[in-house]
Amino acid sequence: MPEPDFEKRGGLLPVIAQDARTGQVLMVAYMNREAWRHTLETGRATYWSTSRNALWVKGETSGHVQHVREVLVDCDQDAVLLRVEQVGGVACHEGYASCFFRHVEAGEWRVIAPRLEPPSPG
Amino acid sequence: MPEPDFEKRGGLLPVIAQDARTGQVLMVAYMNREAWRHTLETGRATYWSTSRNALWVKGETSGHVQHVREVLVDCDQDAVLLRVEQVGGVACHEGYASCFFRHVEAGEWRVIAPRLEPPSPG
Repeated sequence: MPEPDFEKRGGLLPVIAQDARTGQVLMVAYMNREAWRHTLETGRATYWSTSRNALWVKGETSGHVQHVREVLVDCDQDAVLLRVEQVGGVACHEGYASCFFRHVEAGEWRVIAPRLEPPSPG
Repeated sequence: MPEPDFEKRGGLLPVIAQDARTGQVLMVAYMNREAWRHTLETGRATYWSTSRNALWVKGETSGHVQHVREVLVDCDQDAVLLRVEQVGGVACHEGYASCFFRHVEAGEWRVIAPRLEPPSPG
């Protein structure tokens, strides 16, 4: 199994999840070697939760699983891009399709997407 | 000027640059507060180089500047998404349109994009 260079950033690399169909960037999370292997072996996006310090199979509790369609690595082998099919169409625990639901406008944050579900604990 | 939560990850946050027109993910880099402010003030993507430990105005030497069209932040305010216009169509110092030019296929890395220019030092 090929591997990115986990040592380069102390064992944890940033991972982008992108909707394979629309190209929308859904979220940024982190992987260690264990999460990487779990993702490749199961085809389900699996991260390392830096808040809980635990393996995090995305959607395990919420049902919002990410089926991995393609796994890419960057030139320096220290960032990962997952192209996924987001079950339920909601990647963010705040209930938005994407975690990137705010942008800068006229010097302030502004919410630019509809909330599709109530916020959940994760 | 609004700001993400730089303290959350020790002062440096991961930043995704995405082509504003095509949706292609171009690269992942990092920002500290100085890079963030420089980006918002100039409209040019500016990162913090973790290898050189210096402010890095993308394309300053190569000419491959990124004009920032939209700046988004994620739910936890600890990741940034820049939607950019990539001058020259080459974001990667290896000469590819995107730094994500390799994917996993049949248990190996495989290059999936054409090299558009010779590799450059940065």
